[in-house]
Amino acid sequence: MPRKIVIIGANAAGSGVASAARKTDREAEITIIEREKYPAYSRCGLPFVLAGEISEFEKLIIFPLAWYKMMKLNLLTETTVQSIDVKEKSIMIKSADGKESTLPYDTLVLATGARSFIPPVKGYDKDGVLALRTIQDGIKFKEKMKSAKAAVIVGAGFIGLETAHALFENKINPIIVEMLPWICPTVFDQDTANIVQKKIEEHGIKVIVGKGVEEILGDTSVTGVKVAGETIPADMVLMATGVRSNTELAVQMGVELGITKAIKVNSRMATNISDVYSCGDCVESQNMLTGLIGMCQLGTTAVRQAKVAGTNAAGGYSVFPGVLGSSVSTFFGVEIGATGLTEFQATRLGLKPISGVVTSKTRADYFPGAKDIRVKIVAEPEFGRIIGCQIVAGEEVTQRVNMISAGIQKQMTIFELAKADTCYAPPVNETWEPIALAAEMAVAKLRR
Amino acid sequence: MPRKIVIIGANAAGSGVASAARKTDREAEITIIEREKYPAYSRCGLPFVLAGEISEFEKLIIFPLAWYKMMKLNLLTETTVQSIDVKEKSIMIKSADGKESTLPYDTLVLATGARSFIPPVKGYDKDGVLALRTIQDGIKFKEKMKSAKAAVIVGAGFIGLETAHALFENKINPIIVEMLPWICPTVFDQDTANIVQKKIEEHGIKVIVGKGVEEILGDTSVTGVKVAGETIPADMVLMATGVRSNTELAVQMGVELGITKAIKVNSRMATNISDVYSCGDCVESQNMLTGLIGMCQLGTTAVRQAKVAGTNAAGGYSVFPGVLGSSVSTFFGVEIGATGLTEFQATRLGLKPISGVVTSKTRADYFPGAKDIRVKIVAEPEFGRIIGCQIVAGEEVTQRVNMISAGIQKQMTIFELAKADTCYAPPVNETWEPIALAAEMAVAKLRR
Repeated sequence: MPRKIVIIGANAAGSGVASAARKTDREAEITIIEREKYPAYSRCGLPFVLAGEISEFEKLIIFPLAWYKMMKLNLLTETTVQSIDVKEKSIMIKSADGKESTLPYDTLVLATGARSFIPPVKGYDKDGVLALRTIQDGIKFKEKMKSAKAAVIVGAGFIGLETAHALFENKINPIIVEMLPWICPTVFDQDTANIVQKKIEEHGIKVIVGKGVEEILGDTSVTGVKVAGETIPADMVLMATGVRSNTELAVQMGVELGITKAIKVNSRMATNISDVYSCGDCVESQNMLTGLIGMCQLGTTAVRQAKVAGTNAAGGYSVFPGVLGSSVSTFFGVEIGATGLTEFQATRLGLKPISGVVTSKTRADYFPGAKDIRVKIVAEPEFGRIIGCQIVAGEEVTQRVNMISAGIQKQMTIFELAKADTCYAPPVNETWEPIALAAEMAVAKLRR
Repeated sequence: MPRKIVIIGANAAGSGVASAARKTDREAEITIIEREKYPAYSRCGLPFVLAGEISEFEKLIIFPLAWYKMMKLNLLTETTVQSIDVKEKSIMIKSADGKESTLPYDTLVLATGARSFIPPVKGYDKDGVLALRTIQDGIKFKEKMKSAKAAVIVGAGFIGLETAHALFENKINPIIVEMLPWICPTVFDQDTANIVQKKIEEHGIKVIVGKGVEEILGDTSVTGVKVAGETIPADMVLMATGVRSNTELAVQMGVELGITKAIKVNSRMATNISDVYSCGDCVESQNMLTGLIGMCQLGTTAVRQAKVAGTNAAGGYSVFPGVLGSSVSTFFGVEIGATGLTEFQATRLGLKPISGVVTSKTRADYFPGAKDIRVKIVAEPEFGRIIGCQIVAGEEVTQRVNMISAGIQKQMTIFELAKADTCYAPPVNETWEPIALAAEMAVAKLRR
């Protein structure tokens, strides 16, 4: 009898699970249960639709219905899970028309994702307070932009800043409010953040750091935001304040949560319950570098975990090596990226890190169009192993982050990186790769 | 008494030596002897000046005279070395005005570089047969382009192809002749080369592979080139057929050459003669991966070796870790790059390599401006260690090559690379990094 694989959630993680499972077992009966109307679309693309760089939300649908057919996947959209019996290995589902039915499984994968987290600040439920996680959110945001005169972005992470850029492109200069002392605090140290903040401010956008939102003002609709006693007028407010894992179903069926309150999995993405796997925004991850457990709710992490979970759920063998949190974005004319630990994070872990910083150009200095680049490398001081990097440049950041990520994975030292065999041609790089120079600066500090 | 350091050659290698030596020893008396009029300029930029992308040759001068002053370097241009007495540690030099003098040294660095190699094919000395190595060559080439009607490029390496593109930009469609069976044979396998060749041919440029030039025709000036019995009309011919190390001085003073007939050095860039170092295009290099000795006459290799040689010549300690030959170029709308071994080269070394190939996009498929990318990863089949890559794309090749180069340096396997923690945002990458997917394709072959 063919193996019955059921996947709950059809977004990046769930669809990735289905794809890997199908490649592992050509005969399996694979069912995907999705409560939304649309299956997998790229959430990461939402701010770029709002900015007008992508013409319409429909373009974000990365797995069209035809793909599910081609892969012989049984996709049930607008369907909710009522309950799961892990002893009987059966799932009670309810379809859009209200009909309930029972679905047996041999292996089950929870890819239930996450939802926007709106902090319970006074007035958070007023009209005009928005999140940006789903296409529905995007449509609502776009509609609101048409009439809005003043906007506030709460939270200066990548999504907050990307959406600030989208507002700017729509002739609305938002005010950005970040509670922590600098922007992008999970990926940047203050020195790097200050450079990015300056770039944003050059576009006429005000950034307030180190201050929280005390209240959202207005009757039923937002009229302003109170920050450190002062009132900022606004008729739309984006709460870009992170996400929380969807774990209700997991808890209901007895799946163990970890220290982060997200689903706990082992390196094969298996939960504590036999034949139940999980992956994506609803699970916690182990950091490759520190061994610590934390959250890494990135699309790239989701698809990588999904491939492992899908392979295992279909009878194959695959392990997930952990995360480094490599991430990148682009807005206001700069590309920014980071991986591993910041100097601040490493210091808090007691690592006494050293760092090397260099500013250079992305092409030969004499080549037209050469853009500024700043690289910061962070290392531990005994063996000089690289533990992180932060890059801000006019172009070509993504693959530099990937290079450092690979270096961290393979315990590369700043001594090795300073002498790495990098390539160059005048239109595409400087003779001395800035990353190698940053490593050299770090080496110089160690030898001082 | 301050240390006396003498450097012969003031180009990328020589000036790099001087810079590193000055940083190591603030008090040293550093003299650089250069026979050309211009000190360090970027040879790699010459084709891009010819293409009109860089406005003038003067822009290529990367170390202006002011830099030598600032670094307190005694620069002697238009000066030749008459003889070197390694027992007395003194150098007889002759300046532009014909005056001879003697220069003592404590340490000496030979950075004598290389010169164009013109194969002794019949008619090679006719007017209109050109090389492209110096600014003088560039000026001559540019002048010739003004009147030329038909051009032939002999040798389809990066410089040959970059110059073909320059001719194309000047409305002269050259015919490219490569003796070996495919273009860029030292960095690409045939499958990769065919893709690049097609890109070039799409621009209306004919590429002839597997055939050598038999004769250069014409009276005193070139009128054509004979290839496999056929005559190709041409009034200018670029011989892009490689370079040969300048070793005359080294031989004269008793410096040992290696199996490649270039100068033999150890990992500190020291020659067999006490206190005499060498670096750049005149030395041979050890491959990091194979341990084999060969030539790696790249600007990036020269500056890396120069830093090591300069540090050691000034009393510091630095070792050169070897080369992988990472290189990149861009022309005819594609960026191309490679590092390590090709499948062909690895096969000849008996490694029985496997490879993985993937074609994808450089941005999210739905993001405007996404360009094609093709990645080929080569690995050895026992541990799956990466031994090379070849990348052709519309953009973002350079740093991918650097990532793989770092991976090879750190013995990364295709298993690890397939699950590397890469980063993504819709405007700058696909969710699945193409390099990781290529590694996965190679893994699939190993497991078949």
